[in-house]
Amino acid sequence: MTHPFDVAMALDSMDGLMRGQTTPDFANMVGPFGGVTAAAIVRAIENHPDRLGDPVSLTVNYAAPIADGDFVVDLRAARTNRTNQHWIAELSQSTDVKTTATAVFGLRRPTWSDTEPRPPAVPAPEDCASQDNSSFVTWMRNYEMRFVEGAMPGADTGENPDSTTTVWVRPQPHRALDYAALTALCDVFYPRVFLRRGQFIPAGTISFTAYFHADADDLARQGDDYVLATARAQRFSGGFFDQSAQVWGRDGTLLAVTHQIVYFKG
Amino acid sequence: MTHPFDVAMALDSMDGLMRGQTTPDFANMVGPFGGVTAAAIVRAIENHPDRLGDPVSLTVNYAAPIADGDFVVDLRAARTNRTNQHWIAELSQSTDVKTTATAVFGLRRPTWSDTEPRPPAVPAPEDCASQDNSSFVTWMRNYEMRFVEGAMPGADTGENPDSTTTVWVRPQPHRALDYAALTALCDVFYPRVFLRRGQFIPAGTISFTAYFHADADDLARQGDDYVLATARAQRFSGGFFDQSAQVWGRDGTLLAVTHQIVYFKG
Repeated sequence: MTHPFDVAMALDSMDGLMRGQTTPDFANMVGPFGGVTAAAIVRAIENHPDRLGDPVSLTVNYAAPIADGDFVVDLRAARTNRTNQHWIAELSQSTDVKTTATAVFGLRRPTWSDTEPRPPAVPAPEDCASQDNSSFVTWMRNYEMRFVEGAMPGADTGENPDSTTTVWVRPQPHRALDYAALTALCDVFYPRVFLRRGQFIPAGTISFTAYFHADADDLARQGDDYVLATARAQRFSGGFFDQSAQVWGRDGTLLAVTHQIVYFKG
Repeated sequence: MTHPFDVAMALDSMDGLMRGQTTPDFANMVGPFGGVTAAAIVRAIENHPDRLGDPVSLTVNYAAPIADGDFVVDLRAARTNRTNQHWIAELSQSTDVKTTATAVFGLRRPTWSDTEPRPPAVPAPEDCASQDNSSFVTWMRNYEMRFVEGAMPGADTGENPDSTTTVWVRPQPHRALDYAALTALCDVFYPRVFLRRGQFIPAGTISFTAYFHADADDLARQGDDYVLATARAQRFSGGFFDQSAQVWGRDGTLLAVTHQIVYFKG
């Protein structure tokens, strides 16, 4: 049986376009989970015959909700250099642009290396309670989430002075980590404004960026283990807030850093 | 006399394209200062007759060096919603794509608001020594930089265990803050790998993102005063490092947060 994430990643190449379809498993409040849309764009580039190297950076702009059903990804390598390649992508339904994206793919090579921040000091995932929020939004059924701090607020949680969520997360059913899966994990956080206000607030990501630090060895070393994802907002104002996050391997490897700006009401 | 930054922002609309030109004042090691290229894209959208609202987010991908001379910005509103608008831009010289970008513009409205981080605890700009690096790269002559920490390393500085730079910065000659100027300030940091290694290392930004938190009042309140810009890298590996930064007003307003991924050698 094909893994639900791989069902969502299934793309057919047709007339120079990639054709995909939303899957009910990854339904969000409105349209599909943004992380799976971002992952599909990564996968579309990975599948492109002209692709050079692996994902380095990705920005996805959520222009309008994707309706249930087919979509088309129009991909173009705007420039190919010796060691990197710049992509532009537009995801459409009929003639409606729903998502725009740019990505840089590149060849990694051995250099001086260092990671400055340390992963958050946390208990092992096995020692953290799991919270099932899939009755809130369907796509969460695809992830086991063991919260260290900042779990999804309930009816009586109240406001929280800090927007930090730190969570051990793992696809369910288990699945080995690759760039597409890592992309989706970068967007695995519910909106920070829920946590601050202690209640559901209409909110949606407008623009999402991921910087991929993991190379093929880093990914392989994670296998299908939990990753530790931690996110925090900086400023909420004028109907927008930003969020910065890190995705760590259990072995302390910083696999990706990721940022987004989110629209909210109220 | 026109301010050098406004000379760099001068764009003519022609046949649906915006035409600009590099200016010697903003020359970088190779091509123009990336911040001024990003700012020109913001300005091009601001000048577009169909533009809705103000900058919310911007991602600029530096695909290839811009040669001295004319360039063309091809702009398209991929989608216009009721309160926001999604732009795609490509900057070219002849038929060569040099820069790609996406931007979200939007209408800000009063909402619940909060800023979680505090600005770094620092002395006033008047109590910090200014460092003139314009002999290193020309564009720095446009900014007065008073470093709190992480000034540009000299021949004898040696390695630094932390990549943080915190600097009071102000355009010179003085100029009131607007979104274009704020965009350029988001890219005002020399490469973090210089600071870590204590030496010049070939490096260049590949992808740059800015999230604008400042509304028109926040900008107006800054006037032409210094802003406090602070940046830190997270992981260096495989020839790439990421950087996250904040730009604060002297009054403690978080004006923008900004992120980039940078190519480096060695």
